[in-house]
Amino acid sequence: MKAIALLGGPNISWPIDIKDKLVKAREKGTFIIGVDRGSLLLEELNLTPDLAVGDFDSLKKEELLRINQSVSDIRYSVPEKDLTDTELALHYAFDDYCVDSLSLIGATGGRLDHFLTNLFMLLKPEFRQYAEKIQIIDQQNYISFLNPGKHVVKRIENYTYFGAATLNEVQELNISNAKYNLAGYSNTNPVSLSSNEFLHKQDTFNISFKKGLIAIIQSRDLDRFQNIQK
Amino acid sequence: MKAIALLGGPNISWPIDIKDKLVKAREKGTFIIGVDRGSLLLEELNLTPDLAVGDFDSLKKEELLRINQSVSDIRYSVPEKDLTDTELALHYAFDDYCVDSLSLIGATGGRLDHFLTNLFMLLKPEFRQYAEKIQIIDQQNYISFLNPGKHVVKRIENYTYFGAATLNEVQELNISNAKYNLAGYSNTNPVSLSSNEFLHKQDTFNISFKKGLIAIIQSRDLDRFQNIQK
Repeated sequence: MKAIALLGGPNISWPIDIKDKLVKAREKGTFIIGVDRGSLLLEELNLTPDLAVGDFDSLKKEELLRINQSVSDIRYSVPEKDLTDTELALHYAFDDYCVDSLSLIGATGGRLDHFLTNLFMLLKPEFRQYAEKIQIIDQQNYISFLNPGKHVVKRIENYTYFGAATLNEVQELNISNAKYNLAGYSNTNPVSLSSNEFLHKQDTFNISFKKGLIAIIQSRDLDRFQNIQK
Repeated sequence: MKAIALLGGPNISWPIDIKDKLVKAREKGTFIIGVDRGSLLLEELNLTPDLAVGDFDSLKKEELLRINQSVSDIRYSVPEKDLTDTELALHYAFDDYCVDSLSLIGATGGRLDHFLTNLFMLLKPEFRQYAEKIQIIDQQNYISFLNPGKHVVKRIENYTYFGAATLNEVQELNISNAKYNLAGYSNTNPVSLSSNEFLHKQDTFNISFKKGLIAIIQSRDLDRFQNIQK
């Protein structure tokens, strides 16, 4: 079973046509999770989440009442806790509901301390096992995660660029069948190798490494040639 | 001399009233740098950059001509190079123009591979020396960087939260005089300790650590209680 979680990040950054996409996903059996205010936003899209997780401190009293009345599985987190609401959502989705994959929407845009928390959480030993089953998706970016080994990464339709961001120490990183190839790269510090591209008429590139966690960020420009004066 | 660099990130993420702020900064002697399309965007704000850096592949021919005619110091970078245009801007600003500090605007929003490149570049040995002189600023975030030692961090006016993101191995991290304090924290992997807050009526918190590079992300909500249905 696939799952999608909606977080509280600004809706201006969400993928376009989010409601259609969520409705179609649910019709195919996708499990829908609301994280904190994401739960209410799903309600407002007429999509009652299957699971709601949070301390719900971003909800007003009557909003929380609405969630309470409609959502069958609500997990209350404790503020001032060690795990974030999103980390709890991962835990419940994979451990209790045994989902196969989880896409996070609303994990980007807005506050960058939140985004980095969502990005770096997969480095924690308890979440590392889920890394390859998680995607962070917004209007311009599709982030997936790779553990050490040999991988063939597929192009997400309509995405032009890809970057490989090493999130911790990486050893013997190789990238091939891409515009910019790389052989035997090692670094103790994180680095974001950005603006790489798939080869013409190639919908995959190859990547391998022996140590580290890597975020593959497929991205596209919305308005590369932006102007101040329209 | 202070400096501000405008990068090509989406203008929707820039600090509000950017033109007023840039005009006032220039009146006080701030050095203005345009990075790639940022150079043209500055021109469009009627602020000819003092220095323009880039391969300018995001500029149309007539746009590049305009930059060529107006900007007195243009440094052309080579595409498919090791250093990004922003890294070159750092190099020229600090080494050639000896600026004391550099604020980056347009380094966030949009493509996240770009943002991570801008965030992680300060881990590179050649740029590490500039870390404490650099800020990444957008509408919701004010990011500064700390090298090991004891620091007192001042609140940026109108910012509510702060996060401490360790960008590489951190040793003996202590945070005090904050809502959530921390003592003797070490981690080989990056982590983003988000949503901390200054204490009531306190405009500083204390932080110390023995190893690592830390990004202090002061942030604020624009619309924490966002709704789908306005």
